[in-house]
Amino acid sequence: MNASIYRNLINELDAGKKAVVVTIMSDKDSESNSFLEKTLLTEGEMGLQNCIHNLDEVIFQKAQYALESGNLQFDKDPGKKTYLIEPYFPEPRLIVLGGGHIAKPLAEFGARLGFLVTVIDDRPSFANKERFPDAERVICESFEKCFNLFRINESTFVVIVTRGHRHDIDCLRQVLKYNAAYIGMIGSKRRVKSVKEQLLSEGYSQEMLNKMNAPIGLAIGAITPDEIAISIIAQVISYRRLGGTMSLSAKSPKMNWPELDRIVLEELSKGENDPKAVVTVVSTKGSVPRKAGAKMLVWPYGKTLGSIGGGCSEGEIIHIARDVIRNRGYMVQPIDMTGQIVEDEGMVCGGMMEVVIESCVE
Amino acid sequence: MNASIYRNLINELDAGKKAVVVTIMSDKDSESNSFLEKTLLTEGEMGLQNCIHNLDEVIFQKAQYALESGNLQFDKDPGKKTYLIEPYFPEPRLIVLGGGHIAKPLAEFGARLGFLVTVIDDRPSFANKERFPDAERVICESFEKCFNLFRINESTFVVIVTRGHRHDIDCLRQVLKYNAAYIGMIGSKRRVKSVKEQLLSEGYSQEMLNKMNAPIGLAIGAITPDEIAISIIAQVISYRRLGGTMSLSAKSPKMNWPELDRIVLEELSKGENDPKAVVTVVSTKGSVPRKAGAKMLVWPYGKTLGSIGGGCSEGEIIHIARDVIRNRGYMVQPIDMTGQIVEDEGMVCGGMMEVVIESCVE
Repeated sequence: MNASIYRNLINELDAGKKAVVVTIMSDKDSESNSFLEKTLLTEGEMGLQNCIHNLDEVIFQKAQYALESGNLQFDKDPGKKTYLIEPYFPEPRLIVLGGGHIAKPLAEFGARLGFLVTVIDDRPSFANKERFPDAERVICESFEKCFNLFRINESTFVVIVTRGHRHDIDCLRQVLKYNAAYIGMIGSKRRVKSVKEQLLSEGYSQEMLNKMNAPIGLAIGAITPDEIAISIIAQVISYRRLGGTMSLSAKSPKMNWPELDRIVLEELSKGENDPKAVVTVVSTKGSVPRKAGAKMLVWPYGKTLGSIGGGCSEGEIIHIARDVIRNRGYMVQPIDMTGQIVEDEGMVCGGMMEVVIESCVE
Repeated sequence: MNASIYRNLINELDAGKKAVVVTIMSDKDSESNSFLEKTLLTEGEMGLQNCIHNLDEVIFQKAQYALESGNLQFDKDPGKKTYLIEPYFPEPRLIVLGGGHIAKPLAEFGARLGFLVTVIDDRPSFANKERFPDAERVICESFEKCFNLFRINESTFVVIVTRGHRHDIDCLRQVLKYNAAYIGMIGSKRRVKSVKEQLLSEGYSQEMLNKMNAPIGLAIGAITPDEIAISIIAQVISYRRLGGTMSLSAKSPKMNWPELDRIVLEELSKGENDPKAVVTVVSTKGSVPRKAGAKMLVWPYGKTLGSIGGGCSEGEIIHIARDVIRNRGYMVQPIDMTGQIVEDEGMVCGGMMEVVIESCVE
């Protein structure tokens, strides 16, 4: 039954949609076998009020907040219901149209900042893996025809850095069809103007063209290709985190964009009925290797999939997970990564994290 | 005589000052031996009107523009004077106080963006070359005592990312003494407020504290250490290029911050009297490996120092330079880096550049 939830979740993510998985946990005293009840709330359903899943209103409100903010929530008030609300965001993708001297540092910075990067150019000498080692995909195809080789959706950030305004127009005719998270186009004011005029004459509305950031990038006075790439990636980050508003308000919180362990979700979606445990990071404090939402699967005979950060603490959690698999149910476990030894060894982590370990049988 | 100009130039640069070298060239027909006349204009002198060097007023105005914009100028109108106006800017330095999880990506991005990076921390496990491979210097010293180990001047960008507000205060007490190009300090609003209150109570003025960017970085909604480092380096770039105004005007042009071949200047400052030629890139178009201001020295027997970009074109220039050394005087030479071959080979360069080759004997 949970397998179908994870299958639906993956479908939503692949369509560029966010979703929330709510897990309601019965008290540990309860002897019921079905004490972990999971519900998938999709972005579309969340707009439909709380009528489909008939959730507790407080939990539903918290799920909506999780969907907007990307913040995982875990409440374990004694006497009340214990619940885990996990927002899932699609992996952000950066599509770089054009493989020239701006694309090179941009692809590198994009990958470094956590985007899955795709670079497209029609020249084999510019569209190859040697030139873009950090890109997930490098596509050599004309700008007109390339658009059926990748998807653009609400978690896709599109940067147009081709070598000429004709290619820009070829790209924009396609890009403007989709609801991308970000569209930016490089070019002098004159080139941008001529591209916009051409598209207006073809029937594109001013409103559609206004969605495009052109000239591209934050106005930091960038001169070199590396600086221009920084100005672009900084703007892309602002769209990822603030939705392009460049200002914070209570209504639109900073989007946390939680960690996504796709490999773990795919395993869970298979519905294999071998007993295992799911370990989820539910809160962190200070400097820790992985953030809330990170997941690891543990099988009783020692196999694992995914990671909550490695090191000694992971070994301890694997040990505890075996008990959880044996006894069913769930456990909440703190992990202390502070301490003098950590600092003296110059390790990155020096914080605390809390994980939930759930037993998992189909 | 020119050697002393270069010695003075290096002194100015080391003090964080900009300067301009004006070279006035006689016509090639002239048989005079002193047809290359060089003048050093320092930043201080430029404020003193045009009285010291008695330069042509047009040239003096252009030198002032070069000092503000960083743009090299080369005029070779036939019939008029030929002159080369070269602005020299100190190498920009990024001082990172604190070696924690923000400092790590920041030092990397800073070096990548052309800054000479110094990282300081009082913990050996955080202040070491393994942790900061891209930093020019890593200093392990207390934040109180470290300030006599490096210099802060008008081309120094200072980022305070220590692990606590006491260290912040130790840093600021020192940093605020200098006229740094940029000061930024990380910290929550509360931490920043408490640091400012402490310093106000010690007699620092509100005006001085206002020079500091705190909270640090552009407001792009950064969450991860890498994103925070991007928001900081983007702000640092805006100070480097726009002087912190984040807006362009005719009065304050984008600062080009020309290439500095210190190794070449140091050689010229020695005043060795062996004949050689100085090759200077004076203009570029399109994608070229080095920009205006790049310098290379060529000796008649084939030795070179510095580089104008390498490749076949450099070989050709070295050949021509030998003629210039033999015949004295100077030559202007275009270098064509366009052409199908370049593009097909996926090379970075596909532009044009123009170089001036001057013979040079003390």
